[in-house]
Amino acid sequence: MSLTNASPSDAAQAAKSASHVLATLSADARNEALEAIHAELTAARDDILAANARDLELAQKAAADGKLSQSLVSRLDLSRKGKWEDMLKGILDVRDLEDPVGKVTLRTRIDNGLDLERVTCPIGVLLIIFEARPEVIANIAALAVKSGNAAILKGGKESTESFVAISTVISAALEKSQVPNGAIQLVTTRDVIPQLLALDGQIDLVIPRGSNELVRYIKNNTRIPVLGHADGLCAIYLEQSADPSMAAEVIFDSKTGYPAACNSLETLLVQDTALQTHLPAVATALAAKGVELRCDAQSKAALAGTPGLTLVDATDADFSTEFLALTLAVKTVSSLDDAITHINTRGSHHTDCILTASAEQAERFMAAVDSAGVYWNASTRFADGTRYGFGTEVGISTNKIHSRGPVGLEGLMIYKYKIRGQGQVASSYGDGKKPFLHQRLSLE
Amino acid sequence: MSLTNASPSDAAQAAKSASHVLATLSADARNEALEAIHAELTAARDDILAANARDLELAQKAAADGKLSQSLVSRLDLSRKGKWEDMLKGILDVRDLEDPVGKVTLRTRIDNGLDLERVTCPIGVLLIIFEARPEVIANIAALAVKSGNAAILKGGKESTESFVAISTVISAALEKSQVPNGAIQLVTTRDVIPQLLALDGQIDLVIPRGSNELVRYIKNNTRIPVLGHADGLCAIYLEQSADPSMAAEVIFDSKTGYPAACNSLETLLVQDTALQTHLPAVATALAAKGVELRCDAQSKAALAGTPGLTLVDATDADFSTEFLALTLAVKTVSSLDDAITHINTRGSHHTDCILTASAEQAERFMAAVDSAGVYWNASTRFADGTRYGFGTEVGISTNKIHSRGPVGLEGLMIYKYKIRGQGQVASSYGDGKKPFLHQRLSLE
Repeated sequence: MSLTNASPSDAAQAAKSASHVLATLSADARNEALEAIHAELTAARDDILAANARDLELAQKAAADGKLSQSLVSRLDLSRKGKWEDMLKGILDVRDLEDPVGKVTLRTRIDNGLDLERVTCPIGVLLIIFEARPEVIANIAALAVKSGNAAILKGGKESTESFVAISTVISAALEKSQVPNGAIQLVTTRDVIPQLLALDGQIDLVIPRGSNELVRYIKNNTRIPVLGHADGLCAIYLEQSADPSMAAEVIFDSKTGYPAACNSLETLLVQDTALQTHLPAVATALAAKGVELRCDAQSKAALAGTPGLTLVDATDADFSTEFLALTLAVKTVSSLDDAITHINTRGSHHTDCILTASAEQAERFMAAVDSAGVYWNASTRFADGTRYGFGTEVGISTNKIHSRGPVGLEGLMIYKYKIRGQGQVASSYGDGKKPFLHQRLSLE
Repeated sequence: MSLTNASPSDAAQAAKSASHVLATLSADARNEALEAIHAELTAARDDILAANARDLELAQKAAADGKLSQSLVSRLDLSRKGKWEDMLKGILDVRDLEDPVGKVTLRTRIDNGLDLERVTCPIGVLLIIFEARPEVIANIAALAVKSGNAAILKGGKESTESFVAISTVISAALEKSQVPNGAIQLVTTRDVIPQLLALDGQIDLVIPRGSNELVRYIKNNTRIPVLGHADGLCAIYLEQSADPSMAAEVIFDSKTGYPAACNSLETLLVQDTALQTHLPAVATALAAKGVELRCDAQSKAALAGTPGLTLVDATDADFSTEFLALTLAVKTVSSLDDAITHINTRGSHHTDCILTASAEQAERFMAAVDSAGVYWNASTRFADGTRYGFGTEVGISTNKIHSRGPVGLEGLMIYKYKIRGQGQVASSYGDGKKPFLHQRLSLE
């Protein structure tokens, strides 16, 4: 790992060169590098925690001055119970994931002695911009090495001392491995971000892990593909045939499980015929947790007799708002089609759910809603790489190409086509000449 | 198909709405629409050829004035032998391709009664910008309908009359199908391109089919992902152990089969120890077809005694140039590593080849060269969707995400995650709570 003051373009060029070597390393070589990182970090615990304590001290001062939130200070603290151990265990967890490199996904005999093979390979150079949590750097470095990608890392400035300490150790560990110097680059100054975002010749993919504002800024300021999502405006459509207590539980979990998460519920669409039968119990459950309901006129009327609720008249903007708080917009719709249209036009194409006893309604919903996740009778909070069983999560994407939804290691891969021939030329084939065999071969 | 003078944003909005319906149509419904297009085009042959004759007349005048090349005029002509029939047959060929929509590519039991499924679906709205060949519009409309994507089409202005005639017929055909109005939009004025390229909220993917300049312009002027390639700077590394006559044949085909194609050879890297043994025969074969060789000093010296060659001293720029003509840059390298480094730093990551008898050298080359196609003893001209057996070709991509190399219908697809549950909530799982099953289920 380089900690130089090299220019962004030199750093990116070095990462690109390193990526060409890294892409050819065996799974064993990449896993051994991860073990070296794990061992060196374990040995350097005291130094890293000391650096983290210095970050923390500055952050606490800033918090005392009202310049930083207490929750951010808390996220900075690597000495919190279990955090250090989790960081180290995460590296070995990544090591133990299935190797994503070199998987053959298509094999075609073009002609006898002329075989085509499609094989997965790393994308190349990732630019990962993330916020202040110091343990994230170890996780990202591990994912990059495992997937055979070089990475340029830019973390939040509040964790600078921790990042430098951790990356120095990772650098020393990689020196002992086959992973080339330059494969992991740490950038510590914020002002280089615009320069890095201009390097579309060297950097192949940007992964922002942070706030909507960060993601939006990056998407608007680079031609490099960006993997991620700005908004998570998830909706649930509560259809009249849904089991009422099931509906209340799923909505409660989707809204209150972790309101600041991108997979949390922001808009509840209620079928008009379910307003009286279902909505009061839902509202009562939410009110117990302090959720404010921003209701359209019909849903507000339906809740008039229910005690203990915080009801506010919804504005149109509420149905385009990701509250990330204990606030829920409630709208009445008359049909499945209305619900689908609302979600497709007002949502963020992240994760949306229908609650219904009707398989036919559910399948229509899941076919027609244009979102990364479309659920039937399950909390939107399942939209998560770990919950999907991916072993890790690079991020959640609302992109319409490459990777969509929770992204595991697969999202860091592309493929190349290999042809192994015996001197065949293209002009021998085609109209009136040799026919192609195009025989699908086994992938084993 | 709309032929309105609607604003680009209205057209894109209409395409987006149509895409939500189109995405839910069955394979039968999409195939029936293709058959309707085929039938109506067949019936309208005379009208379309008359419109095409008007385009041709204008183009011939422009050619006479030196404002248009004769080859472009020839490409405009739909009445050329076999062209009309090929266009019609192409629609049925697309119909007969395997349905790309709704393929289940992952199935995981998260818990009993809680199943995750990853299923392919259309990307949404494509913007396809192509040049003057009038038959392309039928092909593109067919690919869009087959893949369940809405499309906004912008063709070269020289074919405007043909495009309008064909698209009017397609529009009438789609009226009789379940494919919604607005799914295929034709845009006939050039000045709307910048406006369309700004509509990243509605348009999901841009596919330019045309010159380097067109692709480069588009890539530099939109935040929408672009599928394609600007350059095709293909290289062959001729290693000393290669069979000399095989090498000459493959190089001849790669360079001369169709010099204007993106998969044609532009740079020949010759191992120094092969200069005397292999290069003269290669050069003689190329000279017979009129190929000019731009040689570095070593390769020029090696060819000094060979008669009948056109030898020019290579400049450094020649090794970054896509000649698209009967010109080849020749450079001497001393090792496989030098060849790999040259290709990775100077090439365009399109298609590159090694000619060698050594499987070990070939496998190292194919692992280390960072290109969409990496070949061993086969012509670079095999880089083509039809030759790969994809049945069709949307384009050839040098992108590092989503699709790489020749792109078939698969490149027009993304996926969504469906979860079918029974009211499960995320807060029931995790540390100290219910474990996830994460059982991989069969895809059948």
